[in-house]
Amino acid sequence: MNAITHLDELFTLLAFPSISTDREYKVDLDHCAEWLTEKLNSIGLTAEKHPTPGHPVVIARNEHRTDRKTVLIYGHYDVQPVDPLELWNTPPFEPTVKDGVIYARGSTDNKGQHFAHICGVADTIKEDGDLPVNLIFLLEGEEEIGSPHLEAFLKEHADELKCDVIVVSDTGMVAPGVPTFTYGLRGIACLEFIIKGPAIDLHSGIYGGAVANPATIAAELVAGLHDENQHIAIEGFYDDVLPLESWEREQWAALPDGDAATLKETAVPGLLGEQGYTSLERRWGRPTAEVNGIGGGYQGEGSKTIIPSEAFAKLSFRLVPGQSPAKILQLAEAHLRKHCPESVTIEIHAGHAGNAYVMDAHSDFGKAAQSALQKTFDADPVLIREGGSIPIIDSFKQVLGVDTLMCGLALPDCQAHAPNENFPIANFEAGIRLNRLLLQELADLA
Amino acid sequence: MNAITHLDELFTLLAFPSISTDREYKVDLDHCAEWLTEKLNSIGLTAEKHPTPGHPVVIARNEHRTDRKTVLIYGHYDVQPVDPLELWNTPPFEPTVKDGVIYARGSTDNKGQHFAHICGVADTIKEDGDLPVNLIFLLEGEEEIGSPHLEAFLKEHADELKCDVIVVSDTGMVAPGVPTFTYGLRGIACLEFIIKGPAIDLHSGIYGGAVANPATIAAELVAGLHDENQHIAIEGFYDDVLPLESWEREQWAALPDGDAATLKETAVPGLLGEQGYTSLERRWGRPTAEVNGIGGGYQGEGSKTIIPSEAFAKLSFRLVPGQSPAKILQLAEAHLRKHCPESVTIEIHAGHAGNAYVMDAHSDFGKAAQSALQKTFDADPVLIREGGSIPIIDSFKQVLGVDTLMCGLALPDCQAHAPNENFPIANFEAGIRLNRLLLQELADLA
Repeated sequence: MNAITHLDELFTLLAFPSISTDREYKVDLDHCAEWLTEKLNSIGLTAEKHPTPGHPVVIARNEHRTDRKTVLIYGHYDVQPVDPLELWNTPPFEPTVKDGVIYARGSTDNKGQHFAHICGVADTIKEDGDLPVNLIFLLEGEEEIGSPHLEAFLKEHADELKCDVIVVSDTGMVAPGVPTFTYGLRGIACLEFIIKGPAIDLHSGIYGGAVANPATIAAELVAGLHDENQHIAIEGFYDDVLPLESWEREQWAALPDGDAATLKETAVPGLLGEQGYTSLERRWGRPTAEVNGIGGGYQGEGSKTIIPSEAFAKLSFRLVPGQSPAKILQLAEAHLRKHCPESVTIEIHAGHAGNAYVMDAHSDFGKAAQSALQKTFDADPVLIREGGSIPIIDSFKQVLGVDTLMCGLALPDCQAHAPNENFPIANFEAGIRLNRLLLQELADLA
Repeated sequence: MNAITHLDELFTLLAFPSISTDREYKVDLDHCAEWLTEKLNSIGLTAEKHPTPGHPVVIARNEHRTDRKTVLIYGHYDVQPVDPLELWNTPPFEPTVKDGVIYARGSTDNKGQHFAHICGVADTIKEDGDLPVNLIFLLEGEEEIGSPHLEAFLKEHADELKCDVIVVSDTGMVAPGVPTFTYGLRGIACLEFIIKGPAIDLHSGIYGGAVANPATIAAELVAGLHDENQHIAIEGFYDDVLPLESWEREQWAALPDGDAATLKETAVPGLLGEQGYTSLERRWGRPTAEVNGIGGGYQGEGSKTIIPSEAFAKLSFRLVPGQSPAKILQLAEAHLRKHCPESVTIEIHAGHAGNAYVMDAHSDFGKAAQSALQKTFDADPVLIREGGSIPIIDSFKQVLGVDTLMCGLALPDCQAHAPNENFPIANFEAGIRLNRLLLQELADLA
């Protein structure tokens, strides 16, 4: 098995349109899980596809011995939706290489990263006949919808999944070639609200002025989420936030300028964020309230002079250590109901949620991961938190009682969740090297 | 020619999908204009379809004599879009009668109403061999997009269109069987703004907190259009508003309760409007700022945790006598630019606009119209303004120098601009009677 074959197989994996947020793709997720199961069996592991009330979980393991550490490698084979499709330069499920970079939905998030671990394991078994640790692969298909069934699965299979530490490559590198160890993540809590007014769209001339416009009310509720300093205006929202520690603020201040990076990567005309914090602190260490989608009324060309009968907004809150997603959803719902006038009705639907996570970056496991990263890239790793959310990592801690080493390979311009998602072949190859080095570092721990 | 034939022909007219806001239907508008031209020629008038830079204008006339009054009857054969199509109980362009009511897009607004006048004229010519007045029909295809080419057409054909008074049935009746004379209309000014932030949709975990969310900014700008008393917060917006006169407020206060009617007709949970005014005053005599459509980010099922790259809002302002649409658009644009942060860009596109209109309800022409309405319905007419806009009526005054008698036949629950638009056959027949009575009343004026 050589690098070309690894790439060919990655492309097969990337071709499955395994979009978990849309029920239409359910069968594609199942096919993708089936293909991974066969692949894992073929490299010398014992793999099985487990049904769940949602999409399947794939588990694979080598023969476990009592005299060595057990390492669980987690990944997810589901991907984000692809819209707006018209902004993709190449079809999202036809992987295309240009200038050494793979373009495909899921190339970075997360197929490319977990498949590098699979290839690393395959190479080690092929070359050495065995691995230096007891290994478990756990690959799920519902990460992009908040892993709704994985915690129950962990509880049900807790004996089978017992391990000393977990490895995940689903986080980022601060820059190409800069190994990055992530010791914390933000949590998340999602909700959608729908404002309903008149039974049908109304003529805005006939009724305008005498009835509430649901699109206006939705806009007012969204606008009311922040004050003029970009603090979140929901009562009690910050009550449980653990403040950033000074060593973190110092380390992050020494990284390449977050303002410049944010401006360059996003191409926004200017920055806007919570007063009193740097860009990196805002992205990694402070909670947010975002509207991910808003809609209501006429969406076509030109004008249609109506008062729409309803309007919606999809909100998500990124949370930091200390905050409870359930409590935040309660506070948000109370805030929205309090500020919604009686001239309309409001429906609120809670979505997925997950705790923030933080581990001791200077533990033995943390140092082992940092050493493997150093050898993989021949450079000193940086220690960061990340702004994204992998809610299951908190569940690992709660259910399996172990920490997770986040050794991500995603670059800042990987376009995760956006058109033209991409992953350099060099990072894929680094992931294969990292797997071998990391399993050895963990095996060597006393 | 009997009522059944009139109805059959109305159904043919209603079957043209003459949606002027969408370029896709251009040919259907042309076919509709062609059909009307043939119809008007067939009843003994001389009709011609005139091209414009937009959709055609149809003009028809009888033989004019210098010893009688000249009356111009205006109507429009274009209709509103049909979305949301799924809320229609019957196909919008397949007219369907249920319990004496015609269901079709355009049945009330405006095909049913102007075609009643055509049928009235046809009956009079057939029975009397002539009409009591010099008649001009002027039927346009761009009313729903603000009649962008009709004012130029009026100027170009001013001699041909010279008349003493204009008649339009494109307004409402306050209740079934209550003849209603409308002496004023609100004006309109439309604009769309687009907020642009990051070059592409961003992962809300990776960047959330450090960049402005265009959907949030759009919502804040929409929310900033009103203060807490539902006054419009644009600086200078009310400067030129002519206040309601006391006789108007008294007449309207004597009409059936506007609050109850608004609640019943719209099925809103509660009313909301400018403090200090009744529902009818808010609808007929006060200006508004409405969002007709808002959109940005993820619109599908479930969640997609992005910061959208852009968001838009389509606004329309209803204006009252004294206000200049051009000035209002300038004020609105200045307000939006002033309140838009530099962390995003804003694009503003002005849309269609038209002045408000008011005439002397107690003039001779006004009294003649009220008398014809009294005879048509055997009941005393009520005098109202309306909240909707027919910008061309101001153009008639400016270009042709004459007033317009608005004798509308639309019922409050006609669903104009909404799914299941409808028009009772009884109102269609009343329109045929009204045409004959009104032309005679006008002929009888000294």
